[in-house]
Amino acid sequence: MNTILVTLPVNGTQKAVLENAGENCRFLYETDSSKTEELIPEADIIIGNVPTGDIHASPKLKLLQLQSAGTDGYTAPGVLSENTILTNATGAYDKTVAEHGLALTLMLQKNFYLYRDLQNQHIWKDMGMAASIADSTVVIVGYGSIGSLYAKMVKALGATVIGVKRRKSEKPEILDELVTMDELDNILPRADVVFSVLPNTLATRHLYTAERFAMMKPTAVFINCGRGNAVSAEVLYDVLQKKIIRAAACDVFEQEPLPSDSPLWSLENLVITPHTAGGFHLPDTKDKIIAIAAQNIRAVLGKDEYRNIIDFSTGYKK
Amino acid sequence: MNTILVTLPVNGTQKAVLENAGENCRFLYETDSSKTEELIPEADIIIGNVPTGDIHASPKLKLLQLQSAGTDGYTAPGVLSENTILTNATGAYDKTVAEHGLALTLMLQKNFYLYRDLQNQHIWKDMGMAASIADSTVVIVGYGSIGSLYAKMVKALGATVIGVKRRKSEKPEILDELVTMDELDNILPRADVVFSVLPNTLATRHLYTAERFAMMKPTAVFINCGRGNAVSAEVLYDVLQKKIIRAAACDVFEQEPLPSDSPLWSLENLVITPHTAGGFHLPDTKDKIIAIAAQNIRAVLGKDEYRNIIDFSTGYKK
Repeated sequence: MNTILVTLPVNGTQKAVLENAGENCRFLYETDSSKTEELIPEADIIIGNVPTGDIHASPKLKLLQLQSAGTDGYTAPGVLSENTILTNATGAYDKTVAEHGLALTLMLQKNFYLYRDLQNQHIWKDMGMAASIADSTVVIVGYGSIGSLYAKMVKALGATVIGVKRRKSEKPEILDELVTMDELDNILPRADVVFSVLPNTLATRHLYTAERFAMMKPTAVFINCGRGNAVSAEVLYDVLQKKIIRAAACDVFEQEPLPSDSPLWSLENLVITPHTAGGFHLPDTKDKIIAIAAQNIRAVLGKDEYRNIIDFSTGYKK
Repeated sequence: MNTILVTLPVNGTQKAVLENAGENCRFLYETDSSKTEELIPEADIIIGNVPTGDIHASPKLKLLQLQSAGTDGYTAPGVLSENTILTNATGAYDKTVAEHGLALTLMLQKNFYLYRDLQNQHIWKDMGMAASIADSTVVIVGYGSIGSLYAKMVKALGATVIGVKRRKSEKPEILDELVTMDELDNILPRADVVFSVLPNTLATRHLYTAERFAMMKPTAVFINCGRGNAVSAEVLYDVLQKKIIRAAACDVFEQEPLPSDSPLWSLENLVITPHTAGGFHLPDTKDKIIAIAAQNIRAVLGKDEYRNIIDFSTGYKK
């Protein structure tokens, strides 16, 4: 009998979905990480982002189903046994992150960050020209599951949309162009909007250098809804303070929470959201994670195919 | 020979478009309203929103082409001679207002007004659940040219879209439902988003009463990109202060500029933009007005059909 440890808080309906998938399995529900550590060695399957340091490459563990899309830390040597399959929640966060990203894009294009600040000073003042998403060339860096939904949205609003991804593949119909990361520097100068949804990998660390921001149009806006390590706090501050580009919006930072003494807080042309693009800010995100987890429980039991298996060598979905 | 007075500031390309339409006409370009008053009696055609009090029902005036979509004041008795055709710029502002409206909608749904205020206090704090446009029922009150573009946008993002308009007509494919204004009170309780783009008419004055806001869901958001007289400052303040609905965003107010001592400025759950949805905040708006004006110049010369003729009895396009 397989033991399934669920550390992600779930409601009755979600429990039923999991237990229906894991017929004849023993379910342990424990959300307190001080208690999960003891239960991990018993588990054949874990559903939830248990602390990496608590797993100790448990030899019994067949499946670790993450609740996140990011796999940060779990692919490091020694964390998981080579018998363990790691799956993530790619797909579950598409709607919440893509909508958040679109909302940030429009907030920057319409100067709403300036108008909110003026409102707080009781000042009625026209801040001049806005930008139009319909007239924009939007470059999506890290074109995956989230990026493709965001692409669909901005395309429907009239934008020209260019995807940039790691591996070469056929251009989806929704995109005007699809290029690989080695062409990034040729594409950035054309962008009115750069939407970054890169994961945290060695290859993406500090990808947005001062030189790359300088390649962008001075009217461009940059939105980061991926991981904070794609741009250093120093470069971000410098670029925005000098108005190398017009404005940026970041949901993620190298250091989170952003320290209260960070100079980034005070940049007028930076919009900050506290890593709230993803998470459980929409009601159906967790249902989607549970659906992925249920499929992967069935896969362990030989009744279905695995979904979202992570390749340890890249940290990406296989 | 027809004399055409252009009071709207135009560039060389726009002049060429007008002069090409008004072949053999005499063009007067004057943007200073202290000087236009003298020129008005000479004009057969005026392009631009000259002060209503300066027209004195000029008997020579064949066409007044407004640069605005609103016709506020120009249809009042005594302003224009009965020989004058009044046309407006309906259509020219669709993109700028619909995009502004969408950006405000998403800003409210994603709590960005709260995050901007927290940013200014250097506070990293999760403000909880957001709303999804894809899961929303959006009610567009004043379903016309702007409303139909906004409808197309939110429909593409997944919303259920209901249009409310003055006169009964066939439901466009983009809408899930189209109803007339007398059904408004049946529709408001279903709305997650109320997007108002009503013009300023006697019938729309103070349409949004406290009772109507109370019919909306407590989680609903209200966006006004039409005219400010649709809701009184007092009702708006009271409804938001008591959180009868979740939040609102207004680009227009009964009194503009909004007085600096208005209590509306300080409402956390009200987002204020200073009547910047329309105007010339996108580069192509004026080109679109000039295209409408050129067609109507040709119409005066018997070479084309009129576009956007205003019915004096309703203040709307015929």
